[in-house]
Amino acid sequence: MRIVLIGSGNVATHLGQALLQAGHSIIQVYSRTAVHAAELAGQLGAKAISDLKNIDCSADWFILSIKDDALPSLIEQLPIVKGMVTHTAGSVPMTILKSFPHHGVFYPFQTFSKATAVDFKTIPLLVEGNAEQTTDTLLRLAREISGKAQLASSAQRGQLHIAAVFACNFVNHMYALADDLLKNHHLPFDLLIPLIKETAGKMENISPQLSQTGPASRNDQQIINKHIQMLEDQPQHQELYKTLTNSILDKLNW
Amino acid sequence: MRIVLIGSGNVATHLGQALLQAGHSIIQVYSRTAVHAAELAGQLGAKAISDLKNIDCSADWFILSIKDDALPSLIEQLPIVKGMVTHTAGSVPMTILKSFPHHGVFYPFQTFSKATAVDFKTIPLLVEGNAEQTTDTLLRLAREISGKAQLASSAQRGQLHIAAVFACNFVNHMYALADDLLKNHHLPFDLLIPLIKETAGKMENISPQLSQTGPASRNDQQIINKHIQMLEDQPQHQELYKTLTNSILDKLNW
Repeated sequence: MRIVLIGSGNVATHLGQALLQAGHSIIQVYSRTAVHAAELAGQLGAKAISDLKNIDCSADWFILSIKDDALPSLIEQLPIVKGMVTHTAGSVPMTILKSFPHHGVFYPFQTFSKATAVDFKTIPLLVEGNAEQTTDTLLRLAREISGKAQLASSAQRGQLHIAAVFACNFVNHMYALADDLLKNHHLPFDLLIPLIKETAGKMENISPQLSQTGPASRNDQQIINKHIQMLEDQPQHQELYKTLTNSILDKLNW
Repeated sequence: MRIVLIGSGNVATHLGQALLQAGHSIIQVYSRTAVHAAELAGQLGAKAISDLKNIDCSADWFILSIKDDALPSLIEQLPIVKGMVTHTAGSVPMTILKSFPHHGVFYPFQTFSKATAVDFKTIPLLVEGNAEQTTDTLLRLAREISGKAQLASSAQRGQLHIAAVFACNFVNHMYALADDLLKNHHLPFDLLIPLIKETAGKMENISPQLSQTGPASRNDQQIINKHIQMLEDQPQHQELYKTLTNSILDKLNW
């Protein structure tokens, strides 16, 4: 396929590399910022463009990988092309692209950083197309780069995104709160790494319902009250400790 | 050293195995439940006892690895021995053992399951002794089995335990809440595994402050409101979503 990448961020970068490796051609990379377009285009052997007027309308596939709130205005400026047009966003419905005859979604379910190499084979890739043929094509393309390609409706993708907020963003916030507590007592964050890895690693073998441990899971009120008392001088941490402890107690019907 | 293990749970099991491998002798394993004592004693080449009267008072080291709330009554029943007496608990001060001339704490900072093999070399081992000689001995023993042995006061250990509640127990609860959301929409939990591993794996290279991503981290009110609306039929998840989103917004001074 001859592909135009619209966007030069983390997702565009990793997706472009994976599609190139799978034998496709990235013919153009667009970014509003010429330097960003040039940088990624250079890596992918593509032409950099920073004006949508220069877009190659003959491409087979246009991948829109920009910030959610920038999508509507970009879509308005895009010529009505014959190739497939897809976005890569979790919480944006497919219908935002309905003006294009062949459209869909190509959503890699992972958190990306530019600096960290990514093995696309292990990343779930969730696709949706506006018609059977588009869906089939997107699923076939997804299977070329990921071992975990599957269909997902816009509604399912939205729920997945919320689940990711809990399992990634809120989890990271828990790490940050733990780090605060250690810093206040001159202890290095490194001490937590083995525990963090083990807690995450367990999820490959056991459900989170069965792996819940800690004072709340056994309704150990003595320790819970002691912890709440020890957090007296950190009211925000104390409040969250109470809320999350109650949430675990509720969930386990204590 | 000739060691008596008091307790036969997850920590006693893994600690006993590590000390045996380091060349020490586990001479007795005590558990109130004779079968449990026999099972672990069999693994460690020790004698099983289920009556504290039969304890070998000539041992060099007595390791108490039982539930926190069972410690006081067990300590009362224990004869005043000359060897070192230590417990393995995060939230119990060392002074609970003050009736013994040589006492301290030997706290492995990890979550253990009996079924999962453990590499003690990578687990932080936090020690404290009632006198310099005891502290030195405990630190030397800790270094025999762990690459991450260090001193920690009772106060520091208490804070570490609270940090672990955030970084392990509350994190696991986030996984469980994410699982609920997926189940309600007929999506498998497996989809989250790569994201969970990446989120935890990042902590080896970057601080949790710098790795925070997601709608709250960029104050994306459009997505936040959409998510809150989508959680309308799951009020507990919705309430936590709001609380944790506000906590991230506060932390990042939005």
